[in-house]
Amino acid sequence: MNGKNLMLLLFLLVLMAWQAADAEEGMFLLDQIAELHLEKHGCSLPATALWNPQDGGISQAVVSLGGCTASFVSPMGLIITNHHCAEGALQRNSSPEHNLLETGFLAESIQQELPTHGTRVYVLLSFEDVTTRVAVGTSAGMAAEERRKIIDANKNTLILAEEKKDSTIDVRIVDMYAGERSILYRSMEIRDVRLVYAPPQTIGVFGGDIDNFEWPRHTGDYTFLRAYVGPDGRPADPADHNIPYRPTTWLTISSEGYQENDFCMVIGYPGSTGRYLCASDIDYRQNSYYPWRIHMMSDYIELLEKVAAADSHAAIQVASLVSSLNNSLKNSRGQLDGLLRTRLSAEKQAMESAWLQKYGSKSPQAKLLQELNEQYQEFNSIAAKYTALSWLTRYNQLLSVAQTALRWAEEREKPEAERKPGYMDRDMANYKERLRHRFRNYNPDTDRRTLVFFYEKAAELTTGQNQEWLQALAYNGAAGSAPDFEITAQKLYAQTIFTDLSSWLNLFDMSAEQLQRSPDPLLKLAVGLYKQYKPLQEKERLFDARLDELRRQYLQLARTEQPGPFYPDANGTKRLTYGTIKGYSPRDAVAYSAFTTTDGILQKYTGTDPFDAPQKLLELVQSESFANYRDPVSKKMHVNLLTTLDTTGGNSGSPVLNGEGKLIGLLFDGNYESIVADYRFDSDLSRSICVDIRYILWLMAKFSQANWLLQEMQIPQDSA
Amino acid sequence: MNGKNLMLLLFLLVLMAWQAADAEEGMFLLDQIAELHLEKHGCSLPATALWNPQDGGISQAVVSLGGCTASFVSPMGLIITNHHCAEGALQRNSSPEHNLLETGFLAESIQQELPTHGTRVYVLLSFEDVTTRVAVGTSAGMAAEERRKIIDANKNTLILAEEKKDSTIDVRIVDMYAGERSILYRSMEIRDVRLVYAPPQTIGVFGGDIDNFEWPRHTGDYTFLRAYVGPDGRPADPADHNIPYRPTTWLTISSEGYQENDFCMVIGYPGSTGRYLCASDIDYRQNSYYPWRIHMMSDYIELLEKVAAADSHAAIQVASLVSSLNNSLKNSRGQLDGLLRTRLSAEKQAMESAWLQKYGSKSPQAKLLQELNEQYQEFNSIAAKYTALSWLTRYNQLLSVAQTALRWAEEREKPEAERKPGYMDRDMANYKERLRHRFRNYNPDTDRRTLVFFYEKAAELTTGQNQEWLQALAYNGAAGSAPDFEITAQKLYAQTIFTDLSSWLNLFDMSAEQLQRSPDPLLKLAVGLYKQYKPLQEKERLFDARLDELRRQYLQLARTEQPGPFYPDANGTKRLTYGTIKGYSPRDAVAYSAFTTTDGILQKYTGTDPFDAPQKLLELVQSESFANYRDPVSKKMHVNLLTTLDTTGGNSGSPVLNGEGKLIGLLFDGNYESIVADYRFDSDLSRSICVDIRYILWLMAKFSQANWLLQEMQIPQDSA
Repeated sequence: MNGKNLMLLLFLLVLMAWQAADAEEGMFLLDQIAELHLEKHGCSLPATALWNPQDGGISQAVVSLGGCTASFVSPMGLIITNHHCAEGALQRNSSPEHNLLETGFLAESIQQELPTHGTRVYVLLSFEDVTTRVAVGTSAGMAAEERRKIIDANKNTLILAEEKKDSTIDVRIVDMYAGERSILYRSMEIRDVRLVYAPPQTIGVFGGDIDNFEWPRHTGDYTFLRAYVGPDGRPADPADHNIPYRPTTWLTISSEGYQENDFCMVIGYPGSTGRYLCASDIDYRQNSYYPWRIHMMSDYIELLEKVAAADSHAAIQVASLVSSLNNSLKNSRGQLDGLLRTRLSAEKQAMESAWLQKYGSKSPQAKLLQELNEQYQEFNSIAAKYTALSWLTRYNQLLSVAQTALRWAEEREKPEAERKPGYMDRDMANYKERLRHRFRNYNPDTDRRTLVFFYEKAAELTTGQNQEWLQALAYNGAAGSAPDFEITAQKLYAQTIFTDLSSWLNLFDMSAEQLQRSPDPLLKLAVGLYKQYKPLQEKERLFDARLDELRRQYLQLARTEQPGPFYPDANGTKRLTYGTIKGYSPRDAVAYSAFTTTDGILQKYTGTDPFDAPQKLLELVQSESFANYRDPVSKKMHVNLLTTLDTTGGNSGSPVLNGEGKLIGLLFDGNYESIVADYRFDSDLSRSICVDIRYILWLMAKFSQANWLLQEMQIPQDSA
Repeated sequence: MNGKNLMLLLFLLVLMAWQAADAEEGMFLLDQIAELHLEKHGCSLPATALWNPQDGGISQAVVSLGGCTASFVSPMGLIITNHHCAEGALQRNSSPEHNLLETGFLAESIQQELPTHGTRVYVLLSFEDVTTRVAVGTSAGMAAEERRKIIDANKNTLILAEEKKDSTIDVRIVDMYAGERSILYRSMEIRDVRLVYAPPQTIGVFGGDIDNFEWPRHTGDYTFLRAYVGPDGRPADPADHNIPYRPTTWLTISSEGYQENDFCMVIGYPGSTGRYLCASDIDYRQNSYYPWRIHMMSDYIELLEKVAAADSHAAIQVASLVSSLNNSLKNSRGQLDGLLRTRLSAEKQAMESAWLQKYGSKSPQAKLLQELNEQYQEFNSIAAKYTALSWLTRYNQLLSVAQTALRWAEEREKPEAERKPGYMDRDMANYKERLRHRFRNYNPDTDRRTLVFFYEKAAELTTGQNQEWLQALAYNGAAGSAPDFEITAQKLYAQTIFTDLSSWLNLFDMSAEQLQRSPDPLLKLAVGLYKQYKPLQEKERLFDARLDELRRQYLQLARTEQPGPFYPDANGTKRLTYGTIKGYSPRDAVAYSAFTTTDGILQKYTGTDPFDAPQKLLELVQSESFANYRDPVSKKMHVNLLTTLDTTGGNSGSPVLNGEGKLIGLLFDGNYESIVADYRFDSDLSRSICVDIRYILWLMAKFSQANWLLQEMQIPQDSA
């Protein structure tokens, strides 16, 4: 076979693989549901019952918590979501003496519900395509950066105009398909959200970090909240006289169970995927981004664990950061393992080669691939320094605050329509609120050690490159000696005046000039870093603006190869995904069932975190007091279940619906093999992990005696 | 329910559990096979075809390698066993330039077979019950220690008389049922055993320590040897003119495969089990023996790894010890985990309580349990010191040699019939041979560090007890200061003259008096330790002799409760065990198949030890060149399989036979959950792991081109 024939064969093979894109892959926009023909897959509802522009359909019951998904389950605004999505609300209601995370919480009546101090519920009201409106003033030949500027300004103007009409409405404009479409979303933002019921963390977080991203799983990851509005029915600040919000739609619960291979679907707010990235992008992630992150995070966790071991107060302060770093580390490892396992880079390269072969080396397609390559080469040349600088200011509290103050000061000098996203006046109040929470965990000693750590990581990451900038920012002892990061950091923390909350807040009242002229060593370092960072950030923005153009073309190319509905990457907007309930084989000779049972709780139970469990739960399980929540086929109490649903971070808390649109579970995690699905979905291995609704109902009935809530949800009371 | 009724219920429950002793449990003596009625379980052969006293039956093809099992697979003395059972033979034929472990080995013809330098094959010729003959001179009321002495002397006399008749016969007398029966075994000892064919270790040890005791498994753990005898057909020293041994029976091979739940059986030489131990014995193992071992071994491995990291020559010397310690450590952890998981101690205690209840507190049975308890209490009081002393001389080369010389000198002064087992004149040559091999790995620096390590472990283990003896054996700096083990060891290694092989061998020509009077610091320390050790060893022997009586009674008690054939504990004698081919569920929602396939090799392959694999193998697997060795049902190439067979260490290399008595695989390991089966067998979780014979045949045909061996085994040559 000659080279040309071989390439042709290769192309055909890749085409087949690409076209065979999994039937179960896809996070579809609401207005794409009709194209999916779900009736062919086991759904007995018409598409309009799931979504329609009039009353919203069933999907209207699904809301965003900003980073998580939730749903209404009663006409009185009762909301169900994951325990891990409401952890902040539990923490903010806890003290060492009354730790609601440990004990769980059940309001005895609607009057006893607790304020969440910050949780918000976003109820999608409507959305519309604004592609042409955001493009006003752009033209075909325009430079990417110029185009980007005009579009950003148009978006800001549109949003401000909308918000002027009704300030209780959250307005966002989101790009789909790398900017081919822009959609404006209007959501009602409910600000009074209360805590109704949460199990103890020995149920809600059973398995902890060890079981995170793993199957088999035995976690009761659920919590109930309630949305409140003012007496006029409109969103209002938290107040005693507020009344429960009356949603137009709420979910019906099915406690009838399911069988393997049954149809199921999820409506939710998946955060971010990169399914249409080019080979160069995947290479960067595989060879730089994830290896760097893994290295940094594992070393930084080690440092924080030393800090925690030496000082119990610091231990409490860093606990949540360590837990979140562990989660990110496992995710990054999963991404890297997944990229290597799936050989995605080679697959993408083969696809691009096949395109070259098909369209010819002088084609616009070839030019596109060439330009993409060049952009990534350029980006690779600044990536290490850019990453080193980002890390330096991300985890260090003082530098992070100072850096943010510098950016705010810069943006505040512009009219709102010209500012970068996130720097509107209304964003300032939110930021200051977060700053107050953040200050609680500020520990000068930990912060100083963090600064030294990231100084050293910056030196490590940029080895072999020009490091003058880094040396200039550090103390040099004798002339010509190596920079001493330790002494630099010690001086800074001994001399800066920005060590209390009020001084932090003051930073945001200072002008750019005041900040830049301050003799304080913190601001001097922050300004020095910002001078290094800003040009790189500009470069990165430019790179991004250019890349958006190229990505759009790349995506259009990909679309020509793929039949059927073509979904945009996840971006925090409301989506529907469908699939089946299904186990899988993680490796040769090993099969995982589609569900776990309470047997596994007894097997995993050790009496110590993360495999501790309430004694009462163990007794209920041992005595098999499962009442009518027991599965009729397996005769066991099911705990968690697996589905082929295509989901990602942001889908946490999403309702899992059966073919009749009834609630059968809550999505709360993906398996380890699904982590890489952010880039490439594989229905053989990718699984979403859900809590069985019957486990939740059983715990409510038998463990928590939450009968008034069961009544509110119209669950028949158990007679067993 | 009152206390008495509760106890009665308890008794009934325990009785039921005891009687429900697994249908698949049991390692039966050859003369018990007829009682098993294997035809009811799926065996199509009459019992006499498996074993009969005339020609031995199929079992006659199964031989011992002393610690492993093997079988004849051709009329020309060709033997198949595990790779790990022939590792020594491969090592002894290897040099850094020609490492047969790495490359594997295939003799191109019968003339090219290599000497194994020490491997021996034991062909069982006959056995007979000698219970009454070894008891001659004992009487009912006799003290246990007196009785033991007489029986030991009778055994020695019987063995010497047998060996006088034919010195090529290996004669052993083995106690069954704690001495209720004594059986004399006569085996032909073949001394010329050659290496025929072994795969590279990337196949034979694929998965290494990581996969050891684990499922799923993908190891080609097989090697072929050949037995040679003198031209007269009788065992002879290795010599060129020797001829292949012609066994009376050899196994037929089945390449037809199997289905889950098919009958299978194993004939082999299981080493040791303790199925009838009392609660106190289990307690000692759970609370002292295994925890001590785990602690010691993990610390000692850490020390040896430091040694290896610092010195590449020492690394080679300790490699095999580290590997064997790792294996023991995993085994000990498995035992302890298993004892805790099965709650065997509580089960035994409940059984003993039920006996007390049934027979009354004044019964002989109650007295037996009381005496057992007392014996264990006595033993517990010396256990720590006894263990500390054993460790001191086991891993330290110099002390071990010196200690052995002291024992030999003592025993040599007695007539052979009165010596302790293992100290016959004929044993000396073997010991000196082993000493030569051992000297290769002698490294004074490692040995000195080992001595200090075990000094410290001895101090740790006997904390709170009288440690004067330990202090007396160590250098004391200033008066009243703590003993300095480091200085003691340094002085010893600097001053002793026993640092080369000839001085080691000389030790065995010295009399007890010469050894005891030597001023050499090694012998002074060895004599000092021996003085501590000997009385404890005597106590332990006494304890053991008394315990044997009690164990015999305990076992008789157990027997009254258990219907069906009652098998003795494993003790290195030939046994048959039967079961089925079956996967299992290790935990909730996880199911293991009964077989693995070559898919798993590709999944596990990393390119580095222990998951390296030959490129040629990977290519054959990827191209699915499986010929007619592919499984007809799964359409895959099977690698390993699981069975419920009740086996233990010593069974390695055993032939796995189907219901027609044909060879379908080689047993080579147990799963982690089976480790505790040494004490309690559970057919739900206990699995023996075997190589599928078709994987071996396929590798012979496609990977190694070992066609002449396939022909010899009468395997139809593949046409695909």
